[in-house]
Amino acid sequence: MRPDSRVAVHDALEPADHPTRLSWSVEAVLIAAIAGSVIAAIWGTVPGLSHQTLTRLGDVALAAFAVFVAEYLARLFSAAGRDPDAASRPWQARWLYARSVLGVIDLLVILPQLLHAVGWLDADEARLGAVLALVKIARYAPALPLVISVFRNEGRSLLAALTVMLVLMVLAASVMYTLEHRAQPQLFSSIPACLWWAIVTIASVGYGDMIPVTLGGRIVAGVVMLLGIAMFAVPAGILATGFASELRRRDFVVTWNTVAKVPLFANLDAAGIAAIARLLKPQIVPAHYAVVRRGEPATAMYFIMTGEVEVDVPPNPVRLRAGQFFGEIALLRQMLRTATVTAVTETQLLTLEASDFRKLIDEFPDLRERISRIAEGRLGTPPTPTPPTNPA
Amino acid sequence: MRPDSRVAVHDALEPADHPTRLSWSVEAVLIAAIAGSVIAAIWGTVPGLSHQTLTRLGDVALAAFAVFVAEYLARLFSAAGRDPDAASRPWQARWLYARSVLGVIDLLVILPQLLHAVGWLDADEARLGAVLALVKIARYAPALPLVISVFRNEGRSLLAALTVMLVLMVLAASVMYTLEHRAQPQLFSSIPACLWWAIVTIASVGYGDMIPVTLGGRIVAGVVMLLGIAMFAVPAGILATGFASELRRRDFVVTWNTVAKVPLFANLDAAGIAAIARLLKPQIVPAHYAVVRRGEPATAMYFIMTGEVEVDVPPNPVRLRAGQFFGEIALLRQMLRTATVTAVTETQLLTLEASDFRKLIDEFPDLRERISRIAEGRLGTPPTPTPPTNPA
Amino acid sequence: MRPDSRVAVHDALEPADHPTRLSWSVEAVLIAAIAGSVIAAIWGTVPGLSHQTLTRLGDVALAAFAVFVAEYLARLFSAAGRDPDAASRPWQARWLYARSVLGVIDLLVILPQLLHAVGWLDADEARLGAVLALVKIARYAPALPLVISVFRNEGRSLLAALTVMLVLMVLAASVMYTLEHRAQPQLFSSIPACLWWAIVTIASVGYGDMIPVTLGGRIVAGVVMLLGIAMFAVPAGILATGFASELRRRDFVVTWNTVAKVPLFANLDAAGIAAIARLLKPQIVPAHYAVVRRGEPATAMYFIMTGEVEVDVPPNPVRLRAGQFFGEIALLRQMLRTATVTAVTETQLLTLEASDFRKLIDEFPDLRERISRIAEGRLGTPPTPTPPTNPA
Amino acid sequence: MRPDSRVAVHDALEPADHPTRLSWSVEAVLIAAIAGSVIAAIWGTVPGLSHQTLTRLGDVALAAFAVFVAEYLARLFSAAGRDPDAASRPWQARWLYARSVLGVIDLLVILPQLLHAVGWLDADEARLGAVLALVKIARYAPALPLVISVFRNEGRSLLAALTVMLVLMVLAASVMYTLEHRAQPQLFSSIPACLWWAIVTIASVGYGDMIPVTLGGRIVAGVVMLLGIAMFAVPAGILATGFASELRRRDFVVTWNTVAKVPLFANLDAAGIAAIARLLKPQIVPAHYAVVRRGEPATAMYFIMTGEVEVDVPPNPVRLRAGQFFGEIALLRQMLRTATVTAVTETQLLTLEASDFRKLIDEFPDLRERISRIAEGRLGTPPTPTPPTNPA
Repeated sequence: MRPDSRVAVHDALEPADHPTRLSWSVEAVLIAAIAGSVIAAIWGTVPGLSHQTLTRLGDVALAAFAVFVAEYLARLFSAAGRDPDAASRPWQARWLYARSVLGVIDLLVILPQLLHAVGWLDADEARLGAVLALVKIARYAPALPLVISVFRNEGRSLLAALTVMLVLMVLAASVMYTLEHRAQPQLFSSIPACLWWAIVTIASVGYGDMIPVTLGGRIVAGVVMLLGIAMFAVPAGILATGFASELRRRDFVVTWNTVAKVPLFANLDAAGIAAIARLLKPQIVPAHYAVVRRGEPATAMYFIMTGEVEVDVPPNPVRLRAGQFFGEIALLRQMLRTATVTAVTETQLLTLEASDFRKLIDEFPDLRERISRIAEGRLGTPPTPTPPTNPA
Repeated sequence: MRPDSRVAVHDALEPADHPTRLSWSVEAVLIAAIAGSVIAAIWGTVPGLSHQTLTRLGDVALAAFAVFVAEYLARLFSAAGRDPDAASRPWQARWLYARSVLGVIDLLVILPQLLHAVGWLDADEARLGAVLALVKIARYAPALPLVISVFRNEGRSLLAALTVMLVLMVLAASVMYTLEHRAQPQLFSSIPACLWWAIVTIASVGYGDMIPVTLGGRIVAGVVMLLGIAMFAVPAGILATGFASELRRRDFVVTWNTVAKVPLFANLDAAGIAAIARLLKPQIVPAHYAVVRRGEPATAMYFIMTGEVEVDVPPNPVRLRAGQFFGEIALLRQMLRTATVTAVTETQLLTLEASDFRKLIDEFPDLRERISRIAEGRLGTPPTPTPPTNPA
Repeated sequence: MRPDSRVAVHDALEPADHPTRLSWSVEAVLIAAIAGSVIAAIWGTVPGLSHQTLTRLGDVALAAFAVFVAEYLARLFSAAGRDPDAASRPWQARWLYARSVLGVIDLLVILPQLLHAVGWLDADEARLGAVLALVKIARYAPALPLVISVFRNEGRSLLAALTVMLVLMVLAASVMYTLEHRAQPQLFSSIPACLWWAIVTIASVGYGDMIPVTLGGRIVAGVVMLLGIAMFAVPAGILATGFASELRRRDFVVTWNTVAKVPLFANLDAAGIAAIARLLKPQIVPAHYAVVRRGEPATAMYFIMTGEVEVDVPPNPVRLRAGQFFGEIALLRQMLRTATVTAVTETQLLTLEASDFRKLIDEFPDLRERISRIAEGRLGTPPTPTPPTNPA
Repeated sequence: MRPDSRVAVHDALEPADHPTRLSWSVEAVLIAAIAGSVIAAIWGTVPGLSHQTLTRLGDVALAAFAVFVAEYLARLFSAAGRDPDAASRPWQARWLYARSVLGVIDLLVILPQLLHAVGWLDADEARLGAVLALVKIARYAPALPLVISVFRNEGRSLLAALTVMLVLMVLAASVMYTLEHRAQPQLFSSIPACLWWAIVTIASVGYGDMIPVTLGGRIVAGVVMLLGIAMFAVPAGILATGFASELRRRDFVVTWNTVAKVPLFANLDAAGIAAIARLLKPQIVPAHYAVVRRGEPATAMYFIMTGEVEVDVPPNPVRLRAGQFFGEIALLRQMLRTATVTAVTETQLLTLEASDFRKLIDEFPDLRERISRIAEGRLGTPPTPTPPTNPA
């Protein structure tokens, strides 16, 4: 019975494809606990709170703490999950979880409060654990892993930029100490103090607590500021490139999965779907947006991923839904748009440019025939949605 | 008669292609009302204004308010516009306008002043409505929709960057509270207060009202500043890419429309015009700029979109205008430029690179013949403008 | 005789290709006058200068002013230059110069000092003219026209970004006035005062003279700072793209001119040279840098533009100079480098990648033969520099 | 015997390919000396250190100084290194070292302390030498030469941006002096003082020591801030482009070297390896990361550069190590992944996209056969690692 209960716990914590009512509840409780823990920790530091408020915040913090302890034990217990191989060595799976990044964070959230309870840490340090719960949100926010990937991919270049920045800061601080120490012995009292000036200046924060007054000091400060601008530029460029390429890579996976569900491409092999997915560009349009207009030049055809569009073919407009496509007629016959298509709801589209479209039907002649047949069906009997493109 | 008056009001507010004298006047009045409303609201807060000035500003604000109320009613009344389908359901069209972004803003501009008149809002809050009129300028500035498109397209990535930034800010504020609270209990009084420090520092604003003084606090602040630089870089890269691709997409539409008007391409179909439009690059040159110089290598041919150029063929220079082209002779014969062409006024050109030019005439043999014929005509009788390229 | 003297003056001010001793002297005097004018104007404002210093600075300023007046008159006189067409209408040419950007600046440099002399402007305003002389340096710095081109090309996008930023600033200032006016009536005294806060915050300058203290004010300020980061990103991306494409365009012109001078390509037509120029990438290497190393894979061949390299073929190394090339042997035979080539002085190279190299010799079979013949000659008698590639 | 000792010293300082125990020790001592020198110089300026601490820091600084003197002499002595040509002219090689950038820095580190010992420099100036030792780390950090390359390659563009920024600063300072001098004669006392304001504002540092108060001054300051944002953007774009292209160039060299070691490509010539290397993209995956999953579409094959992966072919998973490859089966047969492959340790992979893969086996038919043979071997007897891909 134990493997079954382990799988049940695992599915409640990390539902694979189809979230159940239980897994939704568990996620809601965990997100509420994260919010409660962080808000209680932050709010509790405001001076002059009433005794009643403090008591309630303490209750929230305690409840959140209890949830986190239960979560940690449950994750440890069910670490092997659905993997039969790992299930045969449950303690190894647990150890793997315990030393993973998220496992360590799960522990760091509860440990300081445990140590505070036994008197080894003071309240301020225990509070850091409660705030650290914010990082647990990474499990529910797809954004954080993306950012982490980019920083890991570009780590070598960023480290290079950081090294140069640190060397410049130390040199700037030393020169500034030599120039300003005599004029302002209280402020520019030592090179470590000047390092504070250097970082505040290079990062262009400029608090104004340490300002050079000598001519030499100001000239050096000016050069440091210009270098700071240049230093800004380097990580900006590196991260921008990194983000662009990582997003492109991830978008491809999402696109592949959606293309594979389009009925039109149902009998293509994986390589064919990949070839199509590579050519499609995602686009989101708001409700009431006219995607194509009658009489405009035809530059692309569109696949509907989510949402709904309306084709204004008189007398009755046709609605198309996820899994259907439009805009292929004008492309096949090199003519102007024959109908205006407007988004009914916010709609996610995949765009296939005319030139890519021609490449594609050269490579996959079957596809040409299928699209032609649907297009002919539409031109013949416009108001009927075409049968082969049933909503997915 | 009602549909006619509705269309008339709609055309006065939103002229389709050919603005009339009436629509120009309406636009001028609305822009003046926006300017008056915003300036009166801003100026009216300056302390020590004379009674006379205040009265005049009040008059301006009242006039602008009246214009906005009239505009809102007119837009509601004529929401269905020229669309016969919408005209059959005018109240649905009105509801669609009322809940559109610009419709809500139009209402938010007048509502606070109405509520102020009945005593439900104070003067300060009513003034915000008057300033909000500035957003109405979006109807007349093509820039704002562009910026909105980019932010919508890149929303997912920007949200990811924002999430990471907010998590970092909360963690930084908590750590900073722990480190600085004892040294500066007045300034770093609570984590919410430290959050203010964190945002001011990460955004590299650095007001200087809260400055860490402990060694630990300064080290953490230095790390936060470096992270701030990195965090800057992410939206910069995302938005830069987004702007570039959105501008490219919009430029294509403009280029297509202008190419379609060039007489040379008059009998091409839509696909052919799109193929050409894709290859052309827009370029603006000032008056007196030499676009090509006699004896230089020929790298491109040019289509004139707006403005006028002069070809220095002796004895009498030739003027070419919008819709005409030049630079094709050297490309067809792979030789050096035979004449210098100078812009007479500021001139918008579309550039067709030599290599793209060769691809194009391979694909459209008709085009080659037409261009060759014109080029031969020019070489034979240079001072005569070629008949097939009459000004558009 | 007058046209001759006009041409002589014009050549002294703007030498076409071959600067003469006279034109060098004129340029030196003008640059000295610019430096003198700017330094005298700046230095002269320092309080507590001795009477002697002030007198000398006045003399320098007066001399520079005399030079500028003479320059302006000379430029006016010789505006028609070498252009016979313009020479027939000299006053039109003069008017064109007078209303050109640089012509207006030339006038603005001298006019305030003239008006000061007759008592119409005070010393401070006259000084601005003297400092404006700095812009005249644009004639001698190739950088400024480049920057101006980029700003003109990208003007439309930058204006869009600026409009959004200004709208946001006005809205932010109005909201901030409503929130902070009661708490800090002295600082946030009016919306114009709050506009100062908004620009200082959005530009992330953060002087610290106006800091919100209310909770609402700080939340709005935090949002404004985040928007400021985003707003930073937009012009950054636009200008970065603009600079990259403008530099690419200019580099092509320079490369074309240098390729045309390489003896190897002497009998190619303009289109062939353009095809080659398009494939070459410029590279600058310092003295003692090993461009290729014996035994490394061959990935490119190199053309020397300036400087000198040494090929270590035993027993006697060979020196190659501007107009010669190396690295072609390994590419022709798909082998490893047969010799190390080191820069003797700082050397400007044009790099031709292996894959581009193959495309090129497919397109121009003559070229293949010429390079093969030279390469064979080198392999047969390595220490002799190949005759067809004499230094340019 | 002397050439031998010179080579031995050179190898200890700059090991070519295989670092010896001696060269490791020398590097450790030199890095320790750099750290010691910098830390002692920085720490020694902190006020209120005990006599004992100061003595110890002095000892560390002296020891580091001795190491640097010994290093400089050793580098001078062994400058000719392993180059027999240079060895015949040892003094020329020494002079080349002495005037190289790193040679000058090596001297600048020891010279100030020597001059301080004889009383020609004071302690502050001598300390700058000790801090300058930080630049010596460039020999051990591959990052610094990279950054230097980028700044050299893009020097011309950066200089253009800097020139524009300096011209703007001087003009802004002059205008600001005219506007603010009367209102704040103490702060905006002269144009040089206003230059300090201009740089602090354009670099968006904003210390807050000089703040315009007049209406004109604030409007000019606002314009300067907006220009500052634009000026930021230019070096950002230039450096971002520069870094991207420099890293691409360097990565190619690294990739080529690793591809050449893959047994599969052992009998390709240099051009073939270069063709492959050009197509591969580096990727680092963490331990436990599933590189490919059973049933997913096949989009790439992978070469292992460092680390180890596990292929879950039942009954016994297979481990693949550096020099081996996987993912080729699905690509050859255009099917879905047949096995999940997970990284055992952090693993560096080179990715070959499916489309590039097809281009490659078209160009190199031998390669197709070799990969097919290995793939068939694997499909037939999955648990056995394929013999031709022994770990490198």
